[in-house]
Amino acid sequence: MNSQADFKPGYLALSGGVGGAKLALGLAQVLSPDELLVVCNTGDDFEHLGLTICPDLDTVLYTLAGRSNKELGWGQEDESWQFLAALDSLGGETWFRLGDRDLATHHVRTSLMKQGLSLSQVVDYLREKMGIRHRVAPMTDDRVRTQVMTQEQGTLPFQEYFVKERCEPRVTGFEFAGIDQASLSPGLKAGLHDGLKGIIICPSNPFVSVNPILQLPGLLESIASLGVPVVVVSNIVGGTALKGPAAKMMEELNLPVTALGVAQFYHENFDLEHLHHASSPQAKKGNLVSHFVLDSQDASHQQAIEGLGFAVTLTNTVMLSLSDRANLAAEIIKVLETAR
Amino acid sequence: MNSQADFKPGYLALSGGVGGAKLALGLAQVLSPDELLVVCNTGDDFEHLGLTICPDLDTVLYTLAGRSNKELGWGQEDESWQFLAALDSLGGETWFRLGDRDLATHHVRTSLMKQGLSLSQVVDYLREKMGIRHRVAPMTDDRVRTQVMTQEQGTLPFQEYFVKERCEPRVTGFEFAGIDQASLSPGLKAGLHDGLKGIIICPSNPFVSVNPILQLPGLLESIASLGVPVVVVSNIVGGTALKGPAAKMMEELNLPVTALGVAQFYHENFDLEHLHHASSPQAKKGNLVSHFVLDSQDASHQQAIEGLGFAVTLTNTVMLSLSDRANLAAEIIKVLETAR
Repeated sequence: MNSQADFKPGYLALSGGVGGAKLALGLAQVLSPDELLVVCNTGDDFEHLGLTICPDLDTVLYTLAGRSNKELGWGQEDESWQFLAALDSLGGETWFRLGDRDLATHHVRTSLMKQGLSLSQVVDYLREKMGIRHRVAPMTDDRVRTQVMTQEQGTLPFQEYFVKERCEPRVTGFEFAGIDQASLSPGLKAGLHDGLKGIIICPSNPFVSVNPILQLPGLLESIASLGVPVVVVSNIVGGTALKGPAAKMMEELNLPVTALGVAQFYHENFDLEHLHHASSPQAKKGNLVSHFVLDSQDASHQQAIEGLGFAVTLTNTVMLSLSDRANLAAEIIKVLETAR
Repeated sequence: MNSQADFKPGYLALSGGVGGAKLALGLAQVLSPDELLVVCNTGDDFEHLGLTICPDLDTVLYTLAGRSNKELGWGQEDESWQFLAALDSLGGETWFRLGDRDLATHHVRTSLMKQGLSLSQVVDYLREKMGIRHRVAPMTDDRVRTQVMTQEQGTLPFQEYFVKERCEPRVTGFEFAGIDQASLSPGLKAGLHDGLKGIIICPSNPFVSVNPILQLPGLLESIASLGVPVVVVSNIVGGTALKGPAAKMMEELNLPVTALGVAQFYHENFDLEHLHHASSPQAKKGNLVSHFVLDSQDASHQQAIEGLGFAVTLTNTVMLSLSDRANLAAEIIKVLETAR
């Protein structure tokens, strides 16, 4: 197997947790292991009980391994909670729900990192142990930690906002601590090669799952200079987020809670003209994210989203079954192949 | 509640793991929380998966809390092994059997110690959380690590000898790394006061459970200068160890595998004449361990053990039921009360 720094996939998928992982699984069904690299957000990683925990990476790994917990919608299947019950009886911190099996992943990762392995190397190790053939990479091996600015409680580390406070405080903004010093992971860096056919932004939270990846120093410039098509799948369908606090965040940030609001976010924040190299002669106008996949039930927004400069594909994006995932993935690959 | 440094018990019990914990539970039945301090060996503590693990302390705590696993003979009741199964599937180290509930104890301890609490403070914390009214203290808050010297594999850390190698290598001796720099824990130090009525050496392994405690700098001298009766309960009954590798170790060290062999060990190693202060005018002759509790089935050794200078009490020492534990404890307290 090639090392991460040598792997040149046809497609990059950028993913957060649950919603993104579903599409990643779909992509893994329609693309061979040679063709796909799934790049995960690490902004919601955190340290807890002495362990380094990477919720989005683990969700993607568990999902690709076919081990995701369908009942809970997060964590592993066949999970048990004896550790947490005992921890509770001893007065330990139990706000983050660590399952007995999940805990083993965190222990292995933490101990390998203490031995000097990078997060990328740990992900590769876990991936192989879990029997996952497709490649997965963290966005960076450096420490980036998403901070949520709130009205009521000031700045909160992401997991405290997300799990401990159940997303209750009103959001005023986000910071990605450490991002200015962070480098692209070797896998992501190698993935940005001349032969890349397209980038898929999975239906993940734009603010806290996708944006930490896109804000990595140099990434937008690399994507722009490759001139590769970038497709985003709306994480808002029918005016609501299929998973997580994205809808609530949009409301608090005064964005319309619709697919159009999502399109506005990508239009306003990732405009080619505003990128670093915009003054160069090759500078183009328009959106870095060229394509928008809109759920059929949101067809009423198609025209407005096209008006923002996106090429819109209307299809079913709600992934209930495994074949939903594969169908959406196949549709996306078709869009990207046509776009080249 | 008094702090550890102020607690002046009537009796000190020195204990290793399972065998010692049984008697500790018996003593806790016949003595009030004001009267007893159980002091635990920490020589078999170790670091594993980033956790500080204290097997003897935990066995004593679980036993006093009524939570010990009667089927396994170690660990907690209602234990499960999901963490270990997952760890195994990820290629982690599974030779030390960490149960899901047990793991919570190690996590809480490790995180409190990282916050700066001493091991004594952690034990007090766990004890209260487990609802244990009787006092328990580690022998020291400093790091002492028992090393087992073996014929086949050189020097092994205790848990590697004990668990990983299943006590298979032939023992040639022991070292207690760090003991020269170790101080008595505040609890043990405070327990050695003028009003102390007696010290009970529980039926634990003399080499690796009791000796690390007794070898702490200054302890033997303190006991000798208090002139307090010390009673040992034989850990060998009917020519075999009720628990653990003591019998095998005695054989390899050329001691008879009998209660007499145990008596010889305490006679030869803890002779008042050889203690530091032996040159002082108050120096006495004879055994530091004054009393020996012998199981009725070993009555044939009584005379020989008395010949070594021990006052022998013949009774049932095999603790199968809870009342066996209490009866033996009551017998021992009677011996110590008579001895004063």
